[in-house]
Amino acid sequence: MAYFDAASTEPLHPAAKAAFLSTLDEGWGDPARGYHDGRRARMLLDAARETVASVLGTRPDEVSFTTSGTQAVQLGILGVLAGRRRVGAHLVLGAVEHSSVLHTADSHAARSEQRGATAEITRTGVDRTGRLDVSAFASALRSDTALACVQSANHEVGTVQPIAEVAAACRAAGVPLLVDAAQSVGRLPVPDGWSVLTASAHKWGGPAGVGLLVVRKGTRYVSALPYDEREARRVPGFENVPAIVAAAVALGAASTESAEEDARLSGLIDRIRARVRETVPDVEVVGDPIDRLPHIVTFSCLYVDGEALLAELDRAGFAVSSGSSCTSSTLTPSHVLEAMGVLSQGNIRVSLPRGTPEAEVDRFLALLPGLVARLRAVVAQPAAAPAAVAAEEGAVVDALGRRCPIPVIELAKRILDVEEGAAVTVLSDDEASALDIPAWCEMTGHEFVRAEPRERGSAYVVRRRS
Amino acid sequence: MAYFDAASTEPLHPAAKAAFLSTLDEGWGDPARGYHDGRRARMLLDAARETVASVLGTRPDEVSFTTSGTQAVQLGILGVLAGRRRVGAHLVLGAVEHSSVLHTADSHAARSEQRGATAEITRTGVDRTGRLDVSAFASALRSDTALACVQSANHEVGTVQPIAEVAAACRAAGVPLLVDAAQSVGRLPVPDGWSVLTASAHKWGGPAGVGLLVVRKGTRYVSALPYDEREARRVPGFENVPAIVAAAVALGAASTESAEEDARLSGLIDRIRARVRETVPDVEVVGDPIDRLPHIVTFSCLYVDGEALLAELDRAGFAVSSGSSCTSSTLTPSHVLEAMGVLSQGNIRVSLPRGTPEAEVDRFLALLPGLVARLRAVVAQPAAAPAAVAAEEGAVVDALGRRCPIPVIELAKRILDVEEGAAVTVLSDDEASALDIPAWCEMTGHEFVRAEPRERGSAYVVRRRS
Repeated sequence: MAYFDAASTEPLHPAAKAAFLSTLDEGWGDPARGYHDGRRARMLLDAARETVASVLGTRPDEVSFTTSGTQAVQLGILGVLAGRRRVGAHLVLGAVEHSSVLHTADSHAARSEQRGATAEITRTGVDRTGRLDVSAFASALRSDTALACVQSANHEVGTVQPIAEVAAACRAAGVPLLVDAAQSVGRLPVPDGWSVLTASAHKWGGPAGVGLLVVRKGTRYVSALPYDEREARRVPGFENVPAIVAAAVALGAASTESAEEDARLSGLIDRIRARVRETVPDVEVVGDPIDRLPHIVTFSCLYVDGEALLAELDRAGFAVSSGSSCTSSTLTPSHVLEAMGVLSQGNIRVSLPRGTPEAEVDRFLALLPGLVARLRAVVAQPAAAPAAVAAEEGAVVDALGRRCPIPVIELAKRILDVEEGAAVTVLSDDEASALDIPAWCEMTGHEFVRAEPRERGSAYVVRRRS
Repeated sequence: MAYFDAASTEPLHPAAKAAFLSTLDEGWGDPARGYHDGRRARMLLDAARETVASVLGTRPDEVSFTTSGTQAVQLGILGVLAGRRRVGAHLVLGAVEHSSVLHTADSHAARSEQRGATAEITRTGVDRTGRLDVSAFASALRSDTALACVQSANHEVGTVQPIAEVAAACRAAGVPLLVDAAQSVGRLPVPDGWSVLTASAHKWGGPAGVGLLVVRKGTRYVSALPYDEREARRVPGFENVPAIVAAAVALGAASTESAEEDARLSGLIDRIRARVRETVPDVEVVGDPIDRLPHIVTFSCLYVDGEALLAELDRAGFAVSSGSSCTSSTLTPSHVLEAMGVLSQGNIRVSLPRGTPEAEVDRFLALLPGLVARLRAVVAQPAAAPAAVAAEEGAVVDALGRRCPIPVIELAKRILDVEEGAAVTVLSDDEASALDIPAWCEMTGHEFVRAEPRERGSAYVVRRRS
């Protein structure tokens, strides 16, 4: 199996595994106890905290270990919101943050409403590479803004965010900044200027069950959970010392190895970006090509069912993920691709774990074009029902009840039947169409005229321009 | 090192360790993904859930894995409170619950107050063995009671709680019951009748980082944390599959081995209970001698500094814990011993992990009497200042500024100087005196007349009765 989904979880670093095993034997005691086994666990925990602090350039007493990156995000956001309740309840986020950040913001808004208060959430936009619009972000900061949250780099498309500029804007506005560094810790240094930093060990080669919540001295913070003495009263529950030690060892190893290995992975990603464009027709490779994480690339293949693409790649021995709506239980495409305004159909994210053999990448690149072509051949059948609805806007494609990628495929076929300058209207009730039809126009040079809601779904009007 | 602190954390079961190692290799993938490595992790997670459900006699879809027993307690209590908000905010607890339960109740009360609502908490008492007063508990249930919480067995003294009777009272009152089964799961079956059950894997020989939150179908439950798709939306964050698999294997092993091994451990605990009473003067062995956990016993040694006792035992190679105030950072004695009204000074909890060799217990029993005698000899020096304050109540012992066990030691010396029927008054500002002076009277047969607050500390009046 060629595992290309490191952005979901990176396999355990060998040094971390060795540390894990020895700490299961030596560090299982309760670090709150004063006897020999407890003191030994405490020493191991303290040493792990110092390792992490040293890699991040913080003080050890600013570092708390959580039980996941998600918990770190939830506690970090809710803790600063509680600490700054008197300032206000306004929260500013980037539009392409991780779902854990978005859900915590939603929860904050819902709870404020329950209390009869209002908690406005401002989500500021990104450009077509997924990079935050810093001036929009800076303008969103207000005197009642309790917290601003930005990821260090995007988890789906790899684009690195302008943290230094965002931090400067936050400092000027007197607003604390939480940086969700889940995708970059152990790979890239985090620029200074944050008040809270969160991360997740299994993304850098540590084990599952460990996250980081780093709260800078001077940040007003009130724990959102019931009182507990563990982890400086920030994270309740018995400390998982063996996993924490393994996480720290993996972080130390990753950060010493990262320069060389990340350069190698980045070269492989460059190769994927270039070769996919050359060998797969109708593909959109997204994300910033230069200022990006070393190990992630995302591209979308027109006229392909994402679910089928994942399944075929799995059969061929490749593990990748997708932001296509066809592969998600929610039927909506990735909010990241949506905010960027890029195609979501037939989407594939490749994220290379450390040590990925070059030959595996080449095997993937050799396989992909034929696989995409076969899937397109299977799916590109005529729509079952001919256009049955009259419309002023030229030919009508009735794709009601049909799922991505069918509406776009039918549009692509029908547009060839009309004169240049004439319109085709697609009726679709698949949520992905709202994103994918404009993105298809952008890619193919046709004009996207408008979308208008209908009793069932929407009508998408497109004018032929070539 | 003879490790006698299994109630804090039980060493990893050998079968669990083997399962942990193999699942680190095979179950590290993201169980939410559809490719091979993800499906394998999902299958391992599902199998672990079925094992746990089968041991507990529940449905697999009622079982969620948390990241600690503390998290299970917090989510369980807050989730039912949120689900039954319309019924009321009243919460009923036993007085000797684990601190995680008490702190969650405090947090509920504080938050309700912040919202301008009131959330009354009723803590009902226990007898001198630590057993819940069922009729007091039943009378505390009201029409606005959102939840009742009771432990299956006490973590400090081992007494098993009358869960079946409590459950019947809750059923009659239409109040859901949360059972904190952290100390008993894997050792004793949990009686039926609960709505929510919580537990902690590292107490039954599983690894740190795994707790159980079991919510019966039909229980109104609203997650207290922001939305996340993991663990049936009950527990946010990436599932720690290797640790969960190890926890399930340990539970399966513990429950098949428990009958024989627990009978053996229970015999060793009986031996400790009997021999400590025979060989250590002025000792109080507490907790129910019969209806108790198989592996826990607690006793308190008069006139001994608990901190020094722990340190001496550690030097001699024994790891035990203590509920004495002298060993805690809070300067207050264990709330469990306090609610029971028993002595807290010189307190030791012995909790035997599975496989404890009989010879280690015998070595402990051989060592203890001499060690206690030596500590008493060291500490039993005359008070620095003679009684300097006049009082109507006979002789005065001025122990202001002196810490446990000194006030009781001075009282024990001074009482011999007065006639039978005459009084001695102890002035003390050590919080432990409020518990330990009445407990000393109970043990020695002298009469505890009263305690009254003074400008500094309190005056405790005792009448000589032998």
